[in-house]
Amino acid sequence: MLEDTDSLPIEELDSSDSIHLVIPHKRTGKPGDAPGIEHDQLLTMPRAERPATITVIDYCPERYETKTVTDVEALLDQHRAPGTVVRWINVDGIDDPVAIRVLATKYSLHPLAIEDLVHVPQRPKVDPYEATGDQHARLFLIARMAMLVDGALDSEQVSMFLGHNTVLTFQEAPGDCWDPIRQRIARAGSRLRQNDASFLLYALIDAMVDHCFPILEEYGNRLEALEDEILERPSPAVIRKVHALKRELLVLRRDFWPLREVVHTLQREPHECLSDTTRTYLRDVYDHLVQIIDILETYREVAMGIGESYMTAMSNRMNEVMKVLTIISTIFIPITFLAGVYGMNFEYLPELKWHWAYPSFWIVSLLSTATMIVFFRRKGWI
Amino acid sequence: MLEDTDSLPIEELDSSDSIHLVIPHKRTGKPGDAPGIEHDQLLTMPRAERPATITVIDYCPERYETKTVTDVEALLDQHRAPGTVVRWINVDGIDDPVAIRVLATKYSLHPLAIEDLVHVPQRPKVDPYEATGDQHARLFLIARMAMLVDGALDSEQVSMFLGHNTVLTFQEAPGDCWDPIRQRIARAGSRLRQNDASFLLYALIDAMVDHCFPILEEYGNRLEALEDEILERPSPAVIRKVHALKRELLVLRRDFWPLREVVHTLQREPHECLSDTTRTYLRDVYDHLVQIIDILETYREVAMGIGESYMTAMSNRMNEVMKVLTIISTIFIPITFLAGVYGMNFEYLPELKWHWAYPSFWIVSLLSTATMIVFFRRKGWI
Amino acid sequence: MLEDTDSLPIEELDSSDSIHLVIPHKRTGKPGDAPGIEHDQLLTMPRAERPATITVIDYCPERYETKTVTDVEALLDQHRAPGTVVRWINVDGIDDPVAIRVLATKYSLHPLAIEDLVHVPQRPKVDPYEATGDQHARLFLIARMAMLVDGALDSEQVSMFLGHNTVLTFQEAPGDCWDPIRQRIARAGSRLRQNDASFLLYALIDAMVDHCFPILEEYGNRLEALEDEILERPSPAVIRKVHALKRELLVLRRDFWPLREVVHTLQREPHECLSDTTRTYLRDVYDHLVQIIDILETYREVAMGIGESYMTAMSNRMNEVMKVLTIISTIFIPITFLAGVYGMNFEYLPELKWHWAYPSFWIVSLLSTATMIVFFRRKGWI
Amino acid sequence: MLEDTDSLPIEELDSSDSIHLVIPHKRTGKPGDAPGIEHDQLLTMPRAERPATITVIDYCPERYETKTVTDVEALLDQHRAPGTVVRWINVDGIDDPVAIRVLATKYSLHPLAIEDLVHVPQRPKVDPYEATGDQHARLFLIARMAMLVDGALDSEQVSMFLGHNTVLTFQEAPGDCWDPIRQRIARAGSRLRQNDASFLLYALIDAMVDHCFPILEEYGNRLEALEDEILERPSPAVIRKVHALKRELLVLRRDFWPLREVVHTLQREPHECLSDTTRTYLRDVYDHLVQIIDILETYREVAMGIGESYMTAMSNRMNEVMKVLTIISTIFIPITFLAGVYGMNFEYLPELKWHWAYPSFWIVSLLSTATMIVFFRRKGWI
Amino acid sequence: MLEDTDSLPIEELDSSDSIHLVIPHKRTGKPGDAPGIEHDQLLTMPRAERPATITVIDYCPERYETKTVTDVEALLDQHRAPGTVVRWINVDGIDDPVAIRVLATKYSLHPLAIEDLVHVPQRPKVDPYEATGDQHARLFLIARMAMLVDGALDSEQVSMFLGHNTVLTFQEAPGDCWDPIRQRIARAGSRLRQNDASFLLYALIDAMVDHCFPILEEYGNRLEALEDEILERPSPAVIRKVHALKRELLVLRRDFWPLREVVHTLQREPHECLSDTTRTYLRDVYDHLVQIIDILETYREVAMGIGESYMTAMSNRMNEVMKVLTIISTIFIPITFLAGVYGMNFEYLPELKWHWAYPSFWIVSLLSTATMIVFFRRKGWI
Repeated sequence: MLEDTDSLPIEELDSSDSIHLVIPHKRTGKPGDAPGIEHDQLLTMPRAERPATITVIDYCPERYETKTVTDVEALLDQHRAPGTVVRWINVDGIDDPVAIRVLATKYSLHPLAIEDLVHVPQRPKVDPYEATGDQHARLFLIARMAMLVDGALDSEQVSMFLGHNTVLTFQEAPGDCWDPIRQRIARAGSRLRQNDASFLLYALIDAMVDHCFPILEEYGNRLEALEDEILERPSPAVIRKVHALKRELLVLRRDFWPLREVVHTLQREPHECLSDTTRTYLRDVYDHLVQIIDILETYREVAMGIGESYMTAMSNRMNEVMKVLTIISTIFIPITFLAGVYGMNFEYLPELKWHWAYPSFWIVSLLSTATMIVFFRRKGWI
Repeated sequence: MLEDTDSLPIEELDSSDSIHLVIPHKRTGKPGDAPGIEHDQLLTMPRAERPATITVIDYCPERYETKTVTDVEALLDQHRAPGTVVRWINVDGIDDPVAIRVLATKYSLHPLAIEDLVHVPQRPKVDPYEATGDQHARLFLIARMAMLVDGALDSEQVSMFLGHNTVLTFQEAPGDCWDPIRQRIARAGSRLRQNDASFLLYALIDAMVDHCFPILEEYGNRLEALEDEILERPSPAVIRKVHALKRELLVLRRDFWPLREVVHTLQREPHECLSDTTRTYLRDVYDHLVQIIDILETYREVAMGIGESYMTAMSNRMNEVMKVLTIISTIFIPITFLAGVYGMNFEYLPELKWHWAYPSFWIVSLLSTATMIVFFRRKGWI
Repeated sequence: MLEDTDSLPIEELDSSDSIHLVIPHKRTGKPGDAPGIEHDQLLTMPRAERPATITVIDYCPERYETKTVTDVEALLDQHRAPGTVVRWINVDGIDDPVAIRVLATKYSLHPLAIEDLVHVPQRPKVDPYEATGDQHARLFLIARMAMLVDGALDSEQVSMFLGHNTVLTFQEAPGDCWDPIRQRIARAGSRLRQNDASFLLYALIDAMVDHCFPILEEYGNRLEALEDEILERPSPAVIRKVHALKRELLVLRRDFWPLREVVHTLQREPHECLSDTTRTYLRDVYDHLVQIIDILETYREVAMGIGESYMTAMSNRMNEVMKVLTIISTIFIPITFLAGVYGMNFEYLPELKWHWAYPSFWIVSLLSTATMIVFFRRKGWI
Repeated sequence: MLEDTDSLPIEELDSSDSIHLVIPHKRTGKPGDAPGIEHDQLLTMPRAERPATITVIDYCPERYETKTVTDVEALLDQHRAPGTVVRWINVDGIDDPVAIRVLATKYSLHPLAIEDLVHVPQRPKVDPYEATGDQHARLFLIARMAMLVDGALDSEQVSMFLGHNTVLTFQEAPGDCWDPIRQRIARAGSRLRQNDASFLLYALIDAMVDHCFPILEEYGNRLEALEDEILERPSPAVIRKVHALKRELLVLRRDFWPLREVVHTLQREPHECLSDTTRTYLRDVYDHLVQIIDILETYREVAMGIGESYMTAMSNRMNEVMKVLTIISTIFIPITFLAGVYGMNFEYLPELKWHWAYPSFWIVSLLSTATMIVFFRRKGWI
Repeated sequence: MLEDTDSLPIEELDSSDSIHLVIPHKRTGKPGDAPGIEHDQLLTMPRAERPATITVIDYCPERYETKTVTDVEALLDQHRAPGTVVRWINVDGIDDPVAIRVLATKYSLHPLAIEDLVHVPQRPKVDPYEATGDQHARLFLIARMAMLVDGALDSEQVSMFLGHNTVLTFQEAPGDCWDPIRQRIARAGSRLRQNDASFLLYALIDAMVDHCFPILEEYGNRLEALEDEILERPSPAVIRKVHALKRELLVLRRDFWPLREVVHTLQREPHECLSDTTRTYLRDVYDHLVQIIDILETYREVAMGIGESYMTAMSNRMNEVMKVLTIISTIFIPITFLAGVYGMNFEYLPELKWHWAYPSFWIVSLLSTATMIVFFRRKGWI
């Protein structure tokens, strides 16, 4: 589903839905509810029709093992494959309170983090939870995964927990951009296999960020097409498409701007779950995020430029219309008056009897027209 | 009253009052008056017709007790319910100097804080008062509670004092968004009951912030409706509604932007009345405030986009009007002239006698018209 | 004079002078002159026709004394009233070099400060002068006092020196907003009487800041009146009034924005002349300044909104004018042509002889008109 | 030449050259050349036709001496006047490599500084050079001296070196605003004579900054004149003058904005050549620079306001033109049609024979006109 | 190729390609690929048709040696020329994985750096790599080299590594602006020869920055030409050229703005490979970068001013067109009506028989025309 990023014909872009992209509908409960979601509280929440799909990958430099869990309760008893070090649990679907409760209990996740994970959308952020008495240190991170579905921008929230040897990821729906990561885990000797859990977290973020580049390329192509169209046949429809596109860029910006801060914080502030190697590699993600934001800014300026081109084109066209009207009117109105004069029925109107009157009339008319044309030439109107 | 946030039909929105929302009328006394309001000074202030309603809630993990106080003076002698730890006193109405004096004296509130509480509106802010000799440490906090009353935005100032075991809240008028909090206090075993007074303060702020989301959703719906309307039937009335909406967004922004700073300060700067747990939970409020401001920014951009769409629509319509005028004029003016020529009464006008003159006239007229139409087609006007 | 803040009828606002408000005419000497003004140098300056009015107020918690000094030289010998602690010397008029020299010498004011006090206008600022050898520590502060004189904004520079027990204030002209302060000094037991000189300085600044609120209210009223007017009868005159108002807001902003920094500096950086109590109270002034700047920003946005409403109204009106012209022209031009055709004098023009020709002409004309009207209805023009 | 700041008639302002003010033409050598200019390298540079004019002023509190040096080489052997402390060498003209080399060698100036001094224009900046082995500490400073020459803004780069007892200044061309400084040096007992070399540097900068105020006043006058003109007779020529003025303001801003940073740096960062007294006085220069930038911002807003007034005026005028056209057309087109009807030559056209037909025609025409006029009155067009 | 910066005739500027300049097409592999490029991985990459050209320059104060390497593998065995200290290896072409692998292995370059070097374009940045166990300290730096090729802006990525005695540079294509550097290395006694490798790095950056000035000059010339053109004959074509130019300025800005940060970081943060001398000289580069960004800002404002001039010109022209139409229509429509009246065929139309009717008609017509002309004069239309 994620691969469908081919350049769509512009005609099929539909702006009618894009406002929904911009205005998030928060699915929280009632304002004033207790903060956070306690583990037991999850049991009272409505159960989703479709249970969440849970995939567990255990690996170490020497071996790795993947399994898809069907019975959520059974997960509690499952130990990681013998000898493996890192466990990555990926949950597709956040409407399954049972699955979330099982994981929240096993990995002692903070109620506030669970609330943020269930009540989407949240702003991308990172919350470090320090180790206290019976709790382990955790790093909780929210990011957004952007995708083009049938040419329209769609984005889902990804919530991630990093422990010492474990990474938990929760996605809103199945389908993601992490298949290359799974292949790299499968490949013995890959750098991913050599490193710890925080490196996996880095790799997941990196994949989400890199996945944005083809989307940007697609938007670049659309902008070029729109720009060509506005120069050739300016129309309100094109402008509406530009507006729709600007809005999708706004959405992308809202997703990636705070992520930049998140990565900056990860890089700068040490946390016991983050290794030094990971920190070095995060620098690279940070650079890519800065580049994405740069490109988004540039696109915005280009889109604004298209809008200005349109206004200029409209103003030119108006000018041209007015010039045609003025030229025709100015040439014919005076001589029409003259014809009117000699259409009068006065008994005493001497010119009517003159032999050369009619030819003279034409000569005067042509002279008047010629004068007007010279005048317009001077003005540069024709 | 606060629940009335259903989406109103746009026609009923009235922009005439919204300027009052934007321009606060400060109800202070004369400039140059002594700073702060001394406790005794309160006695000289005009007594409100309706005395303030004071609700006292005492609670501890094991039990809780609610009472509404009628005789303000009696409050002085009331001890908190035996064994309870936290007391929350909520005052509805700030026009009752007696009630304020009683509380100010009992809890030794600072004159400057009393002034800010009485003279509304103030900008949201937090003022820490350190413990000195005979004074206890206090945290004084101003926030604004936004509500939609009959579809129009209304907001009142909420002033809050936090002591070691006490929270005092003053509202301008009855009616608030804190009923869920009261229910949570009533529910044994709730996290609120387990925690201290600062956690209650956090819960109150959190409720006010979360209460903003349905309001934002309402504005989002209105924006969508306005956008549809501007595309279908652009009219100055719609633009006026957009302006009114932009102004209400401005008011919301003015209420919540400084609150963000307030919460940031609370999080960052330790104060003896604030527990560590509360500090952790405030992080969540802060994230929500950032999200609200993000959404407000987005709405502003959307509203500006609607304004631009309107200008484009107007410009298009003007263009179309002008084109119709020009096409009609340009086609008929030349042939009207021709008809005028042959309406002239010259004695010597040879064409008048020709047999094929009249059919030729029509042929010339039709040819001229055809030429014009081809010309307009080329220009892309028809 | 300062009380005249009633809402003036808008017609009397005159924009012709307001540019002078914006563009300060610096009354310095020649560029390149020696920096600062030495005490002796003051003797060479031209003496003002009207000598400065000097008022001296001495007070302590127990007693106070006010006198107006006529003979400036005599001031040197005057000791403060026995037992009093704080002395406030207020000078109305900065054109009297003798008075300034006497004070400058007695209180060892720095030449740079004297220059800033004499050469108005300066930007609001605070300059701390440290105690050195024979010099006492001084705090030099420039603020601006805004007033509405006959409905027009006027503002004068106020220069203030704070010593350990002395406050010196210099105003450009008589008339100020400090009468409530004088009354509070006169009232035994007032907080002002209990405190030191720096608290007096705070009270003076506070009065100037609070005095701005009625001015803002006046501007708020004007804005509302202008907004109503632009909606009912848009005219260039209203827009000029909006421009004039925007400019006065600009002046207010220029006066109060740097003052905010000044108060912030006072709060943050300790100085031996500033007591801790004063510092606490300055926090309140700071909040008011932030509020003033917020309101000014809001007014600016409202004023800009009025400007946009005007442009929209103009554009609508233009559209309407064009529509009327187009409708009338488009209906009559074709049938006028037809009338012209049958006014032709061709000998062979068969329709002329038909019996039903004239009624048919009218039928064709009415049909054409009806068609046009249907067309315009479809377009939504009528 | 510098004194010619009288307010020029607006007509003589010519915008054609002002773009050159904005776009600096860098006179560097080829890109990639060695950085800095070595002292010996200066010998290979083309010698200017007119040798630089070098003025040397030596002074101490007791005496002072001025001489203009003709033979540059001789400068090397000249010792400062006996007993004097501070030496100020001013060089007019930077095209004389011999003079620069002599000074560069004698005062061991850094190659990078020499490059910046020769290759104008550079951005105002300050470069401290620390004392190393055989080099003395130097402060190198670039500023720009703005002047009005024949009413047009001109500015030249001034490069300054400060040593312990020496100030070197290099100007692009003769003519400056420092004559008052020279007079103050000549005046025994002046504060300048009492102080060290860094105080002289301060005085020179102060003179350049203060010299900007009359220029600003001139621009203020021009803005007022342009504003009056735009209200009375808006024309494209006035707008072009406003554009030209805005550009000159841009140039001033580009000259003084970085200078503000320079002075701020001097104030904040200690350097062994800068005395504490100078540092105190620099605070004053800094305040003036902030004021200049404030005024420039205000002027910019005023200029933008004039531009908006013009667009409003144009739009009003267009509206008026269109209204006249529409009124005339709408009144006459229907009755012209009616006249055309009764000019038709149908044999059977009964009204032609009626006795009261002609008077009825006039009555109908007048009624139609009256209706139209009432309609326009209602619309508020006439 | 780089020298072709002559001012092109504006007509030849083509905006059609410029969007490609703005929207970078990232040539990375698939998103989600492993981070960095391992040395061995390079062997699997497609080999470029044209192998990279590698130039090696070894130098010390006493001697220098240049050679172009053909057999890449042989480079491994080549020792630097005896006695020389600094080695500069320049690689033209980044499509040759073998060459890159050889160098990456020999100089132990970090995989992330290799990825950034191969996957162009990257944002200019600096990444310091600390010395660890078997790795040497490296400074990795990305900059962009801007050039005008046939009057169109082109820019390529330059990746640079600095070691203790080695500088590695990778360019996308042959042709650069470093020939003057090579000549300076060839010149015995040049400052470059006396200094270390970091000074060479500085010189290379300096050359790239200085190379921007002629480009800016070229753009300045184009802006002036466009401004003249817009004043003389405004046309949409000129506006399109202005848009194209604005976009190229945007590209330059995107190249040099981050470079400023890079140089600032180099200056501020010590690194073991950077000498103090280099740090001093980098200050100069930093100043030039600030100047470039200043000029770019100024150009942007000038370009925006041209856009505004165009809109004003269009609006004026429209006004003029409308005025001509209105004047002609208003003069002739009433008298055409009058002529129509006396062309009516009423039997009883007394004026037709009057002897002076025809001359009276002309008198009335002329009077009407004169009245209109006076009216237009009053309005200032003619």
